[in-house]
Amino acid sequence: MSWTLTADDVRDLARGAAVLGTGGGGDPHVGALLAEQAIIAHGPVDVVPLNKLPDNAMVVMVAMMGAPTVMVEKLPSLDEVRAAVRAVETALPDGPITHIVCAEIGGVNSTLPVAAAAALGLPLVDADAMGRAFPELQMVLPTLSGIAASPVSFADEKGNVGVLQTVDNSWAERIARVACVEMGCTIMIALFPQRGAQARTTMVEDSVTRAVQVGRAITESRGANQDPVASVVDVLGGRELFAGKVVDVQRSTTAGFARGRSRIEGTNETLELSFQNEHLVAQSGATVLATTPDLIMVLEHDSGEPITTEGLHYGQRVRIIAAPSDPRWHTAQALQMVGPAYFGYAVPGHRFDGSPDHPTEEDVT
Amino acid sequence: MSWTLTADDVRDLARGAAVLGTGGGGDPHVGALLAEQAIIAHGPVDVVPLNKLPDNAMVVMVAMMGAPTVMVEKLPSLDEVRAAVRAVETALPDGPITHIVCAEIGGVNSTLPVAAAAALGLPLVDADAMGRAFPELQMVLPTLSGIAASPVSFADEKGNVGVLQTVDNSWAERIARVACVEMGCTIMIALFPQRGAQARTTMVEDSVTRAVQVGRAITESRGANQDPVASVVDVLGGRELFAGKVVDVQRSTTAGFARGRSRIEGTNETLELSFQNEHLVAQSGATVLATTPDLIMVLEHDSGEPITTEGLHYGQRVRIIAAPSDPRWHTAQALQMVGPAYFGYAVPGHRFDGSPDHPTEEDVT
Repeated sequence: MSWTLTADDVRDLARGAAVLGTGGGGDPHVGALLAEQAIIAHGPVDVVPLNKLPDNAMVVMVAMMGAPTVMVEKLPSLDEVRAAVRAVETALPDGPITHIVCAEIGGVNSTLPVAAAAALGLPLVDADAMGRAFPELQMVLPTLSGIAASPVSFADEKGNVGVLQTVDNSWAERIARVACVEMGCTIMIALFPQRGAQARTTMVEDSVTRAVQVGRAITESRGANQDPVASVVDVLGGRELFAGKVVDVQRSTTAGFARGRSRIEGTNETLELSFQNEHLVAQSGATVLATTPDLIMVLEHDSGEPITTEGLHYGQRVRIIAAPSDPRWHTAQALQMVGPAYFGYAVPGHRFDGSPDHPTEEDVT
Repeated sequence: MSWTLTADDVRDLARGAAVLGTGGGGDPHVGALLAEQAIIAHGPVDVVPLNKLPDNAMVVMVAMMGAPTVMVEKLPSLDEVRAAVRAVETALPDGPITHIVCAEIGGVNSTLPVAAAAALGLPLVDADAMGRAFPELQMVLPTLSGIAASPVSFADEKGNVGVLQTVDNSWAERIARVACVEMGCTIMIALFPQRGAQARTTMVEDSVTRAVQVGRAITESRGANQDPVASVVDVLGGRELFAGKVVDVQRSTTAGFARGRSRIEGTNETLELSFQNEHLVAQSGATVLATTPDLIMVLEHDSGEPITTEGLHYGQRVRIIAAPSDPRWHTAQALQMVGPAYFGYAVPGHRFDGSPDHPTEEDVT
């Protein structure tokens, strides 16, 4: 069923997306501010279920690329959003863009498309391309279905715009990433134009609704004196991995990414979290508790407030929870793209039920 | 008068352009091979004088961007040339490209446009945008006239293509340069689309003819047992600065450029040449003999064969000659863009007649 996303929904969406962003995707307040501003100026946004998308719709993803550590200091504008979408539209041979969709349901990139939809007067699809957040632009389920990211556009706050037509989605990532670094470590991108018929099969449905539910679960639990962390675990069908105090955070911004590690000290054990924009591996000593592509989330101990990797600091009391990813991320092909080995972590792949992430015969097809 | 450039002219053009390229612009044989191949496949190229260009012609520059040290190992193809030109054409709001022109009259970038013109079946304008070669894309006379480089396209041998619309020509250089490095240190670019009426006032006329004359002067002098170096000096209205033996060459390829220095030992004195793709400063002790924007060229002592900066090596017997640049390069605005200080050389600006390069009142307008 279609629904209308108002300025009041934006805070819940942003909070829920910060949870689902697994530490990455940038400060949710940045995108929330922009989305609220756009809705106030241009009216609320129609949210259309993925399965109601007409075959000949033209759907495009809008996202911010860059280092979240920079994003919090350099606010995006609606001009950049519009410039990026219009640049893809100009490069498309057949017809206008009819719908906006999220590339990831995480942080700023879940609220930015709301701003884009409002500013452009287009409906938003209740979906995203990951069911979580990942650091590189080719890391979306449509890539696994052979959908081209191109034409990929990028725009900066100065007014520079570019459009790429690349031979594969990894080249789109490589060229856009160096442009991003040169242009000041954040750019607005529009990419993966798809017909409605394609999008219905390649995307994760109900993502925007789920993010709002997660955000609302936190605020409502607080109001009802219930445990917000337990409510989030419940909504996501996940589990709590660990509770403790942040005792160490190491981070560096290299090649446009925020990379690092944090240590959380519990009663008897220590948890180590590794991140590259997003939390990717949680391990306690030699025991791997969860790995990418499943979701690893850090929430403030009592309030359940999600903490981004750049918001982590010494002394925070936190709880670490995990939730299963979209099952398509556990195929052999997908794990090559987003498994722990791709990010340089020498830990075995790991399914959410604890079984090893061995590709099965039917995955390899 | 229009003339026809045949495969036979290409060798003279390439040799002359290697001289005028002042050590940069890449190995002329690379572009010559491609131009010959294109002319054999598609027929000779009509060369149109700049002052005969119709007002509403649409002229575009075609060039290779990258490090000459890499260019010699990675041959370009006609596919890349066509892809770059077509990408600019698609981004232009009004009408097809009617003419190809050289961005610089130096090395590979003087013969590549011949290949482009042949492959696309378009005439070549007898002109270039510098009257020499410079290392960065915004360093052309049209920039001084406020002409935008955008839309700038780039294409690589893999099939990746991009189009940029930038707020100024330095941003086009910055973004294209990082893309170039990521794409393997050489890309084909098409840029500075201009109407004929604009091009007639912003470009340097007769450049292709001049390059052919310089190349022919070398081969004809050799045949007539005359001094080829003296013939080149004569054609260019230049002078010989120094003769000696190369005793040291230091070079590094950084950020997409070939940077370095060479020392040439004469009878009593030593000459030091500094280059960044092109030779930019010639000095003997504290005495500056010539600097950018004037042309500094290294020729083999007896044969007059031009030597590129990447072809310089220990033991070569060489003669260094200089020639005056287009006078528009000596205005204050131009010197900010291409004077010695821009390239990081702490030497005073210097006119070809030996007077200091002080901007005059009328230059500053």
